[in-house]
Amino acid sequence: MSSLFNQSLVSASQLDQGLLSQIFTLASHYKRKVAEQGVLDILSDKLMASLFFEPSTRTRLSFESAMQRLGGRVIGFSDASTTSLAKGETLEDTIKMVMQYTDLIVMRHPQKGAAQRAVEVSSVPILNAGDGDGEHPTQACLDAYTIFEQKHSLQGLKVAFVGDLKFGRTVHSLCQILNQYNSELFFVSPKTLGMPEWILQKLDSSRYSQTESLEEVISEVDVLYMTRIQKERFKSEDEYKKYKGVYIINRDAITKMKSDSILMHPLPRVDEIDPEVDTDSRAMYFEQAKNGMYVRMALLTMVFGKA
Amino acid sequence: MSSLFNQSLVSASQLDQGLLSQIFTLASHYKRKVAEQGVLDILSDKLMASLFFEPSTRTRLSFESAMQRLGGRVIGFSDASTTSLAKGETLEDTIKMVMQYTDLIVMRHPQKGAAQRAVEVSSVPILNAGDGDGEHPTQACLDAYTIFEQKHSLQGLKVAFVGDLKFGRTVHSLCQILNQYNSELFFVSPKTLGMPEWILQKLDSSRYSQTESLEEVISEVDVLYMTRIQKERFKSEDEYKKYKGVYIINRDAITKMKSDSILMHPLPRVDEIDPEVDTDSRAMYFEQAKNGMYVRMALLTMVFGKA
Amino acid sequence: MSSLFNQSLVSASQLDQGLLSQIFTLASHYKRKVAEQGVLDILSDKLMASLFFEPSTRTRLSFESAMQRLGGRVIGFSDASTTSLAKGETLEDTIKMVMQYTDLIVMRHPQKGAAQRAVEVSSVPILNAGDGDGEHPTQACLDAYTIFEQKHSLQGLKVAFVGDLKFGRTVHSLCQILNQYNSELFFVSPKTLGMPEWILQKLDSSRYSQTESLEEVISEVDVLYMTRIQKERFKSEDEYKKYKGVYIINRDAITKMKSDSILMHPLPRVDEIDPEVDTDSRAMYFEQAKNGMYVRMALLTMVFGKA
Repeated sequence: MSSLFNQSLVSASQLDQGLLSQIFTLASHYKRKVAEQGVLDILSDKLMASLFFEPSTRTRLSFESAMQRLGGRVIGFSDASTTSLAKGETLEDTIKMVMQYTDLIVMRHPQKGAAQRAVEVSSVPILNAGDGDGEHPTQACLDAYTIFEQKHSLQGLKVAFVGDLKFGRTVHSLCQILNQYNSELFFVSPKTLGMPEWILQKLDSSRYSQTESLEEVISEVDVLYMTRIQKERFKSEDEYKKYKGVYIINRDAITKMKSDSILMHPLPRVDEIDPEVDTDSRAMYFEQAKNGMYVRMALLTMVFGKA
Repeated sequence: MSSLFNQSLVSASQLDQGLLSQIFTLASHYKRKVAEQGVLDILSDKLMASLFFEPSTRTRLSFESAMQRLGGRVIGFSDASTTSLAKGETLEDTIKMVMQYTDLIVMRHPQKGAAQRAVEVSSVPILNAGDGDGEHPTQACLDAYTIFEQKHSLQGLKVAFVGDLKFGRTVHSLCQILNQYNSELFFVSPKTLGMPEWILQKLDSSRYSQTESLEEVISEVDVLYMTRIQKERFKSEDEYKKYKGVYIINRDAITKMKSDSILMHPLPRVDEIDPEVDTDSRAMYFEQAKNGMYVRMALLTMVFGKA
Repeated sequence: MSSLFNQSLVSASQLDQGLLSQIFTLASHYKRKVAEQGVLDILSDKLMASLFFEPSTRTRLSFESAMQRLGGRVIGFSDASTTSLAKGETLEDTIKMVMQYTDLIVMRHPQKGAAQRAVEVSSVPILNAGDGDGEHPTQACLDAYTIFEQKHSLQGLKVAFVGDLKFGRTVHSLCQILNQYNSELFFVSPKTLGMPEWILQKLDSSRYSQTESLEEVISEVDVLYMTRIQKERFKSEDEYKKYKGVYIINRDAITKMKSDSILMHPLPRVDEIDPEVDTDSRAMYFEQAKNGMYVRMALLTMVFGKA
């Protein structure tokens, strides 16, 4: 735990196979313990700040649940408009205040790099819960854990990421993790929403490819990771509709997937996955959501050196 | 407790006299226990989700207080605009996420039927804290308990409901409860805001009547239940003012009430009850608010089978 | 503790030297205890309401942290728009509801006098966390404690208050405290934003002076207390810029201060203090923020008679 212990988690690049393995083991442990006991008594002397400068449900609620299931306590905000940010306070000043009250800060912020800026002034650990179109490393942990649970290993998997890869921070983080395990990655997106250069540079260039065609890869992959395409990313309504119509998994599309493959999505979804496939045994997005709490319990105890 | 135990509460029609009697007994018990101990240790292994898709103070704060007074923990939101709902997520997807983190979901939603939709996908109990112009069964419980405390029985009471009976979900729920106790119900409202047909059908038709005149019934009833009339329900300003001016309880009006009758209101009030009558011994609306916490403590422990 | 015990704190005028001394001692005690134990077990039977009718980060989070560090529990809201206030409920009705659920109410409200109005209807103690342009007595306690920590006494200090003294509630409260200790006060502001008459009347008139010139006093004082000047307080953009440009502490300005003086600010700051002086040993604003939690822990235990 030396590289995470008492430290911050800003980027998935901080997570090596040893740490991930520890996270997975702990998450499985907490899954059992919560079913048995409901609330544990591990962080009952700790206070977590939950600072969401940008709306979130899943990430915020699962982090706050994780802390409470560990016996810990939470303060924070879910909406920057009710805070002194609205009065023009800098992020740095906000962090230098909140770190005085709490033992750990979980934060989401609309700007890429915000979590790193927080780390630079904070005396307590920072967990990046999403920074603009940067990273979302705790989501990558739960995604990786879900794959691990289903496929029993992350080694050498074929994984397609589909949709808005330019702004999709969850895929920015996850592909860095998979890259450590000799995965073969397929980036499926409109050209204008391709995986950004700063991420591609971190990957083994012989082990990924880029395409616009979902059709090309859907029957090949072990993991199909869908993301939301947001209307406001496109120049025209027509362009939006063109891609929106293509990257959709419904009952027809899912038949093309391998029988032992899995279908993932960070949620919330809009139209990318039709609810008619929710009951398909390959659909793992609600399992991802569920794992979010256990993986975050693991991260919280590791940060505090109580794992 | 078989019909509520480990289940959801969506409609007051689920509550029979046996359950109500148990709720009243428990609520009285918790009233004493909280006065003695402040916080109990009954649900300290439980995490409650408090999902308010629509603003609320009284219901939300009394539910969250109830859970905390029982030693339990709470996560949630009080404003749908800070959640993934704003990103277009369906209610069903939100519930299928939150049920993974928590042991129980309390929810308010602007659409009638929302709580039932939640029940259909949830693996944890749902408590309906108001669904549009549908029902508000936990409010009905606290109203019934308040009447029980004051009148020592719910049997055969004459009860008038006054104001907006069409959209007033609290009265939709309460009249279903009173109907079980041979009450005589008077529905006093503008014709356009009368009790809806789907509620009237559930009642014994020989035991209710409808009128526009408060004057007609005010001196007869054991319970006068006022509700707020919202301007936006009317077609014209003139029509609004006409009714707003009529259904008001002030010092003059209260003199017409029987000396042992009680005056109720779910709150918040605007002009329907003049604060000058707050000190009248018949005014029970703050007692209702107070009972809200104890009745919800009762419901929470019953749902968890810890009663 | 007779004058605070089981009572409300609305104005700094309620705090005499004996009470302040007790607050300081307790705050120091909690600073040590939190470092050792994280969470204490002093108010574990108490539920605090945190009612912020107006946005706040520092005050709200430090109060909620204080309560949680004492083992207590919190309910409330941070945004009046999600409450029944939006439906037209009066402050009095809101308080008469919340006092039924909780053991103490901490409140911030945009109107001067709101906390006193709450006291008049409440059966539980009210702690004023800022009422419009009225007072902010708990901020004054933490300011006084910070001065005490640094200067070892409040006796006979020279203190300048700079900026918007008309609407700045923190200075309204703090100067009443300092007045008890034979301080010499300098009120430095644009004429239109001078200290209001209702505060001046409470002070020893031979021990304060008013000026527009920061230059005049900066090298004389033991404490320089800066406040934020808000654009909307001025009639014209030009007038705003004139003063905004004058009342600024940067690396140049701070050299004029005495070497053993201290620089304070209630935060959030905008431009009044340049971050380049944050590392100067006289800069105490983050220390103030830190002390906020410990001082509020002191006040909470004193109000509950557990000190």
